[in-house]
Amino acid sequence: MLGTCLENVRKKSPLVHNITNYVTVNDVANAILAAGGSPIMADEPSDAEEITKICNALNINIGTLNSRTIDAMHRAGKMSQKFGHTNLLDPVGAGASSLRTQTALNLMREIRFDVIRGNASEIKTLVKGSGTTHGVDADKADAVSDDNLDYMTWFVKDFARSTGAVIALTGAIDLVADSEKCYVIRNGRAEMGRITGTGCQLSGIMAAFAAANPDNVLEACAASVCMMGLAGEIGYTHLQPYEGNSSYRNRIIDAIYNMTADTLNEGARYEVR
Amino acid sequence: MLGTCLENVRKKSPLVHNITNYVTVNDVANAILAAGGSPIMADEPSDAEEITKICNALNINIGTLNSRTIDAMHRAGKMSQKFGHTNLLDPVGAGASSLRTQTALNLMREIRFDVIRGNASEIKTLVKGSGTTHGVDADKADAVSDDNLDYMTWFVKDFARSTGAVIALTGAIDLVADSEKCYVIRNGRAEMGRITGTGCQLSGIMAAFAAANPDNVLEACAASVCMMGLAGEIGYTHLQPYEGNSSYRNRIIDAIYNMTADTLNEGARYEVR
Amino acid sequence: MLGTCLENVRKKSPLVHNITNYVTVNDVANAILAAGGSPIMADEPSDAEEITKICNALNINIGTLNSRTIDAMHRAGKMSQKFGHTNLLDPVGAGASSLRTQTALNLMREIRFDVIRGNASEIKTLVKGSGTTHGVDADKADAVSDDNLDYMTWFVKDFARSTGAVIALTGAIDLVADSEKCYVIRNGRAEMGRITGTGCQLSGIMAAFAAANPDNVLEACAASVCMMGLAGEIGYTHLQPYEGNSSYRNRIIDAIYNMTADTLNEGARYEVR
Repeated sequence: MLGTCLENVRKKSPLVHNITNYVTVNDVANAILAAGGSPIMADEPSDAEEITKICNALNINIGTLNSRTIDAMHRAGKMSQKFGHTNLLDPVGAGASSLRTQTALNLMREIRFDVIRGNASEIKTLVKGSGTTHGVDADKADAVSDDNLDYMTWFVKDFARSTGAVIALTGAIDLVADSEKCYVIRNGRAEMGRITGTGCQLSGIMAAFAAANPDNVLEACAASVCMMGLAGEIGYTHLQPYEGNSSYRNRIIDAIYNMTADTLNEGARYEVR
Repeated sequence: MLGTCLENVRKKSPLVHNITNYVTVNDVANAILAAGGSPIMADEPSDAEEITKICNALNINIGTLNSRTIDAMHRAGKMSQKFGHTNLLDPVGAGASSLRTQTALNLMREIRFDVIRGNASEIKTLVKGSGTTHGVDADKADAVSDDNLDYMTWFVKDFARSTGAVIALTGAIDLVADSEKCYVIRNGRAEMGRITGTGCQLSGIMAAFAAANPDNVLEACAASVCMMGLAGEIGYTHLQPYEGNSSYRNRIIDAIYNMTADTLNEGARYEVR
Repeated sequence: MLGTCLENVRKKSPLVHNITNYVTVNDVANAILAAGGSPIMADEPSDAEEITKICNALNINIGTLNSRTIDAMHRAGKMSQKFGHTNLLDPVGAGASSLRTQTALNLMREIRFDVIRGNASEIKTLVKGSGTTHGVDADKADAVSDDNLDYMTWFVKDFARSTGAVIALTGAIDLVADSEKCYVIRNGRAEMGRITGTGCQLSGIMAAFAAANPDNVLEACAASVCMMGLAGEIGYTHLQPYEGNSSYRNRIIDAIYNMTADTLNEGARYEVR
């Protein structure tokens, strides 16, 4: 059950090392804490390598990457893999610039990721090896819809097969798959796209879920996606008419903080294909 | 009409590349999203140069600058100019250190800015080529008041003439001018000065407004200043007695999110000189 | 009286230069503003050195340190000391990696700090010269409790004696000591540990308090600790049942913003040993 995955996060409080962008890093930290994990950030190469050793998971997010942090990503990623920790890649902006695309591809070449989470354009860029995303949001043409759901379900399973990672392709409809099974998730609200960093927060939380449920990584990742979307639904009900995206950001993290296993089990909307 | 400028932002959703400080960057991103634009951040020189190509505007903010990001500012600025995008400079702390003053002056020498937005001390530093600001807030002696309004109106028009940029000098009274016309704007509240980054947020929003209204940059910049001040007024009415600057920050971004063209047209308080 | 220390911050509005981590920097800035101080951030070495000159205090926080910012810390710290400003060290993660431990120890060797603030594990690492902290939170085994209060009181006084600094060791029970006197403070709530950066915020505020009360640094530091904890207590009373750590973060800063000398005097819970 998805709720059990959440309870394991609360019980084990996994320490998640985040090498992530400075735009959304504070919300990532508070979201991980809200979920029951413990965040730490370090991006100087030698420090990142050492900090990773004491952690349970590594969340590599390539937004606002630079040459120093790219080095840190590689060194920490290899160390994390060596120690058998959970490795997650969030290829922010892959397809929007060659540095981002190449960095994501290089990381995938050198490090075995347990989980890769991105929007449709980013994931397609990783599969094709190049892309033309306009910005950090997914192109509309790439979106998962009921019309292309069969194809996209096959697509993410196939990418899971070739990488050995759980693939989480998130958007209006979220797909979370290994090579055999794909969760098709319909939690969440469109207004979440008007907040910066809900995807980054999800990656941090997902790393905590995967680390706390090592025998059940696929379901744990699906649970984190359902929880994030459900928190978006719950948070929205507490908004006043005069409130907007800044308050909504707080309400979502608050809803994660107050999420129970029962609420998650009852509110999760998904099918498995 | 000012409201039309806002509607154009909502309609076109300009992609704004921000090379900005890490103190207020999250609020800048959420403020741009609230206004209807789309933010992206990249500050590794090669990445910044490439990301700028897919954007509509570039917002260069020199707070927490370093040698790497200064290089990124120059390279992205030149690329943005080459592509005919909107270029905005926010010279945070010009006058407070020689690196900041010189960086702002060097950028102005090498890049043609469409808009320059700063407080009175920062703008005076740019005009004189040196300054003695104490921190990142304007010195009281530099403030625009009814007593020096004629002179200051001339001063910003003259700077607009010499630079070819729209100049936005913001404070208790805001001045937004090209060489011919100056908007004198009286929206806003003093308590906004107790929140970090309202100026940075305004610069990001202003870049979006200027990019979405290329034939009407002066009015678009004035519209963004009126909107920010009006959001400060509206947000304040929703504060509880026990709330302070942290909630006020959220309320202002929320008010931008809910701003309509009508509200802006009715609430804007300005005269043109 | 503690309230007088707060009034001095409000009256003098000390300018606090923060070389701090990018995770919590925005909250640090808003917390300093809420307390009545004025924040500025600069971490490029030459800029940091020059910006420090116009400030009243320097807050060095080693979270997300890198080789460039470590250089900035040293140069700014020496300049700040030369100008007789207040120097504060927050050794975030000392004990969690050798870079963090060594950086903190090197800074203490080269710069005379007026105040050192950390959790129990960080402070113990500085005393012993090495440590094994798991993350950026204190190990439970290191916590101050009623059982070890006599020893820990002696411990912080002894460290204050050997360093010449006021030592603030914060946790469920906070200790603020010079070589003669130790404030044992019991304000605050456990839920504050579920928010990222309350410790970082406290360091920024403490630097402002110390700078505004140069003849009374020990009491000023104790006042800032009582105020932060009391703000945590007050902020908690304004939380709705559906709110969590993200809203709580705002409520605490709001409570600092609205804190009066009387509220602080009445709500502070401490004894002097």
